[in-house]
Amino acid sequence: MSIERFDVGPRLSEMTVHRIGDGGTVYLAGQVAADASQDIRGQTAQVLGAIDALLARAGSDKSRLLRVQIFLADLADFPGMNEVWEAWLPAGAAPARATVQAALARPEWKVELLVTAAL
Amino acid sequence: MSIERFDVGPRLSEMTVHRIGDGGTVYLAGQVAADASQDIRGQTAQVLGAIDALLARAGSDKSRLLRVQIFLADLADFPGMNEVWEAWLPAGAAPARATVQAALARPEWKVELLVTAAL
Amino acid sequence: MSIERFDVGPRLSEMTVHRIGDGGTVYLAGQVAADASQDIRGQTAQVLGAIDALLARAGSDKSRLLRVQIFLADLADFPGMNEVWEAWLPAGAAPARATVQAALARPEWKVELLVTAAL
Repeated sequence: MSIERFDVGPRLSEMTVHRIGDGGTVYLAGQVAADASQDIRGQTAQVLGAIDALLARAGSDKSRLLRVQIFLADLADFPGMNEVWEAWLPAGAAPARATVQAALARPEWKVELLVTAAL
Repeated sequence: MSIERFDVGPRLSEMTVHRIGDGGTVYLAGQVAADASQDIRGQTAQVLGAIDALLARAGSDKSRLLRVQIFLADLADFPGMNEVWEAWLPAGAAPARATVQAALARPEWKVELLVTAAL
Repeated sequence: MSIERFDVGPRLSEMTVHRIGDGGTVYLAGQVAADASQDIRGQTAQVLGAIDALLARAGSDKSRLLRVQIFLADLADFPGMNEVWEAWLPAGAAPARATVQAALARPEWKVELLVTAAL
């Protein structure tokens, strides 16, 4: 058993990896857009790019998603988020997913994704 | 290590199963009522029925729940949801649980449950 | 494989432990303040104390956090919560974290933490 952490700060790590036996589970911090001036499509694309980059560092990728929780600041952005999400997702590899509306920590953020993946 | 997916679509799978060593973890997508015209008791019963059916397909059941996150569109529905939930839950097998209020993806949905279970 | 439950009630267990192979995952119920008359710093300190106590009973501790989801009733409490959180967290052991605003089950509760940890 081991725990590995990535981008460890005083408040959070961007990713933790929990290895058990022959496998492991990858927990990402809530990912938000670095450039929050963009619209929902731009912010979603940024978030998905950040997820790709983090998963690669753990030796995983978007074909191994287990569950994704999506928080939208405004449900009116649901179609725009889904369009970018579906274009990004590999065929046949969709995770369990749940989406609700919630105010995010900064008012300019429109979407936050909370990813759990397999190693 | 393996990942198995159930009811895979372009956007989400209704369930993913992550097998490690001698065990595994089951991640369900957020479950909502198929007939959203019903009240909180009816919607909760439908959601719990959908969870039973999904878990059975993975070879698990409601005696193996690890955690359930509950999203209520209106906290006024907390007592009605709990009444149906407690009647459904096997004695001695309650999962870790957390409930908050959040607007759901469709305005007619009153409750969404996000289940993690053991194989 | 085994599931162990702590403080099992008719509605929820305060903690479930899922053992697989040589390791295990600990799922806590959403933790809230016992004395909800306190401000955000006091409520956060109570919640973190409850988490310490639960993890100890599972044979884990705050150096093994994998992910923490934080629900704040009011995002204005974000700085106060973070101050107490960062003072509590061991250096180099921060979990993946995500914070959103959501109304909690009782209006006097200001913060709820949902913890996943390694055994």
